[in-house]
Amino acid sequence: MIKDQRMANAFDPSKLAGLKPNEQAMIERRQKALGQAYRLFYEHPVHFVRGEGVHLYDPEGNAYLDVYNNVASIGHSHPKVVEAIAKQAATLNTHTRYLNESILDYAEALLATFGGETYQAMFTCTGSEANDLAFRLARSYTGGTGIIVTEYAYHGVTSSVAECSPAFGPNLPLGIHVRTIPAPDTYHFDEAAAERRFLDGLSAAILDLQRHGIRPAALIVDTLFTSDGVYPEPVGLLAKAAKLIREAGGLLIADEVQAGFARSGSHFWGFQRHQVVPDIVTMGKPMGNGHPIAGLVAKPEIIDHFGKNVRYFNTFGGNPVSCAAGMAVLNAIKEEGLQENAAQVGAYLKAGFETLAETHTLIGDVRGAGLFLGVEMVTDREKKIPAKEQTTWIVNQLRERRILISTIGPDGNMLKVRPQLPFSKANADQLLNTLDDLLKQL
Amino acid sequence: MIKDQRMANAFDPSKLAGLKPNEQAMIERRQKALGQAYRLFYEHPVHFVRGEGVHLYDPEGNAYLDVYNNVASIGHSHPKVVEAIAKQAATLNTHTRYLNESILDYAEALLATFGGETYQAMFTCTGSEANDLAFRLARSYTGGTGIIVTEYAYHGVTSSVAECSPAFGPNLPLGIHVRTIPAPDTYHFDEAAAERRFLDGLSAAILDLQRHGIRPAALIVDTLFTSDGVYPEPVGLLAKAAKLIREAGGLLIADEVQAGFARSGSHFWGFQRHQVVPDIVTMGKPMGNGHPIAGLVAKPEIIDHFGKNVRYFNTFGGNPVSCAAGMAVLNAIKEEGLQENAAQVGAYLKAGFETLAETHTLIGDVRGAGLFLGVEMVTDREKKIPAKEQTTWIVNQLRERRILISTIGPDGNMLKVRPQLPFSKANADQLLNTLDDLLKQL
Repeated sequence: MIKDQRMANAFDPSKLAGLKPNEQAMIERRQKALGQAYRLFYEHPVHFVRGEGVHLYDPEGNAYLDVYNNVASIGHSHPKVVEAIAKQAATLNTHTRYLNESILDYAEALLATFGGETYQAMFTCTGSEANDLAFRLARSYTGGTGIIVTEYAYHGVTSSVAECSPAFGPNLPLGIHVRTIPAPDTYHFDEAAAERRFLDGLSAAILDLQRHGIRPAALIVDTLFTSDGVYPEPVGLLAKAAKLIREAGGLLIADEVQAGFARSGSHFWGFQRHQVVPDIVTMGKPMGNGHPIAGLVAKPEIIDHFGKNVRYFNTFGGNPVSCAAGMAVLNAIKEEGLQENAAQVGAYLKAGFETLAETHTLIGDVRGAGLFLGVEMVTDREKKIPAKEQTTWIVNQLRERRILISTIGPDGNMLKVRPQLPFSKANADQLLNTLDDLLKQL
Repeated sequence: MIKDQRMANAFDPSKLAGLKPNEQAMIERRQKALGQAYRLFYEHPVHFVRGEGVHLYDPEGNAYLDVYNNVASIGHSHPKVVEAIAKQAATLNTHTRYLNESILDYAEALLATFGGETYQAMFTCTGSEANDLAFRLARSYTGGTGIIVTEYAYHGVTSSVAECSPAFGPNLPLGIHVRTIPAPDTYHFDEAAAERRFLDGLSAAILDLQRHGIRPAALIVDTLFTSDGVYPEPVGLLAKAAKLIREAGGLLIADEVQAGFARSGSHFWGFQRHQVVPDIVTMGKPMGNGHPIAGLVAKPEIIDHFGKNVRYFNTFGGNPVSCAAGMAVLNAIKEEGLQENAAQVGAYLKAGFETLAETHTLIGDVRGAGLFLGVEMVTDREKKIPAKEQTTWIVNQLRERRILISTIGPDGNMLKVRPQLPFSKANADQLLNTLDDLLKQL
């Protein structure tokens, strides 16, 4: 059976009656103007009017601790990003077909985060566009079309990328040139077995593509395997995977939309934990702290091959305002020590969840790196039975206690802990103490 | 033979030696950091550091009259857009899964521009994403996959949209479910014949898709047929086309990335000139005056069908800052009378080109609506032989005289006249007089 990952934490529009009149009115306006494809979070949706640091504020001025939003990764309404955007927008906002220093300064600063590896940068506006472009590059360079993804991967919403995103569930068919492989599931298997399942799956997928006359173009992985259930281990796995896919003529694409920009704490990019050099690295969400900027870096020979045949012009991609936002984010991560903070507070938070697990048997496992943690909830630790209902209840109860969080994983039974990088130990304590209270009620 | 539309007005990197040392240095930095897929405009690329109104400024403070950039459509660095972005970015920038008024206010204001027709809005970050999503909606709703485009159409850069964009030339193969039809070419044919070729082409494309077992999903057209060579006539054509594609089970998608947001002068949207109601309308470039916002409106039953099966979440799409930028643009178009200005100055400019055509036989035809005009250059008016070299020379000479313009059309022999909407008659005179001088030299 294909697990249906349709948003576990979505508002059910049939439950409109229980809400405040002004919330009902807003939701009715949404339904009329935006229609069916938009979803709201929570049994009781939240209305926000202001954001600052690690907090969002409702119209009454109540502060919500944000443990979810990795887009405003360096803190909501970060003054340096706001200033950079405002200043550049007032000066010049144009495109990449004129000479302008902002894209060069930013591209060079970004490329410098790759530890001396030679890459070139291309800019888009969204992570979906970045992955879509990565597929175009990989297919052009390899001559293949086959794409291999993990079983519950999410890589974005363009046609080409959505058909490589099994996380959408059974209503969205995978592409005919797409194969899935198991994520390195270290909860149900030991590390060696998890790695073997992943690599054997990859070999089988390559063979199956070839058996169907499809040449592999790429293996693409979220380097923390987040939508598959957050699997940061075993380290080194991706180096072995890279070898296999390259032997088959394909490329390794590291999707850093989740793990990148210092979130993993120990490294700036998630793939660096695995000591591998991907052929293409894609990035998005936190890149402009909410300003729509995304992109990729790729080995020069890959971009050469593509660029000689086809021009690429993304109207808004790499514009001076987006580059100013991106540069402000890079600077803030460095100047404010946010990578170190992600490592320290991430470790503190992880230890805190592990301490909770000592008294609350509902917590089956705590996994993650830096400030991306998954807390897996089970009704039975031996049989590892997913506690989906309880997880949903916790998420909604946390919302009532003004803490924002969501669920993750194929069974919707994991707390998705993904706060802003300046998250403090006091913020962590607030989350841990509130969760402790809730778990006592279960 | 497939005409190769690779940028007629692109800088040739082998000509680096003739440029100023600081320009050479910037281009070398670009080549190293960004690689081969990025192109610069002009034999002598331009370096800009500031924009204001209808002018861009180089580092020496020289003003260039901008007759090209339709993104900063209401004027470069428009103070109201800058203020809206700065204010909202400092307050709150989050996503569509929380309640927020900005997306509702903006969606309602946008929907009000459709003259009472019932649509719903979905937001993306780029026009490419908007067209990509339109294809997903159309394919979901119709159950078909076939897409019909004009022979030199350009609809964007995602995989799915690029394979429907013959403007990229022969190096980018069209998708196997894509068919092309002639644009309504009123230069080589009279209006009745141009319309017949377009509609007969459409019928043939539908039949050919069906003959191959492919059900048509949509006909998508730029409502001014700009990359095909700017064909605003015959009005009414699209209503007839809509009938044909709907009879075959497909939808009409109006791509308003070029024609929309008041550019055509007489109407807010290009399709409104044709008195047709498209099933889906996509929009992009000018929507946020340079801020990355794009989107579509579609008939509610189309969005319903899609949204019930699949969720759609575009991380940055419809965020409060983007919506604030979009709202400022809508307000400025209204408050500053920019649609009326596009109509008046557009007509003035068109008449000016027609006057130039009386003395300069190089001008074969002047076409367009509002402030999107195409001036077709030919070496022989009888035989209509494209004057590509002369057109390229004019574009580069205009750049030396600090007027920014580009080429358009399958043969690269048209001046692409697409200034900002506040373009004045004095601006028009400057362009016309300079062009007159240049034409005298030919």
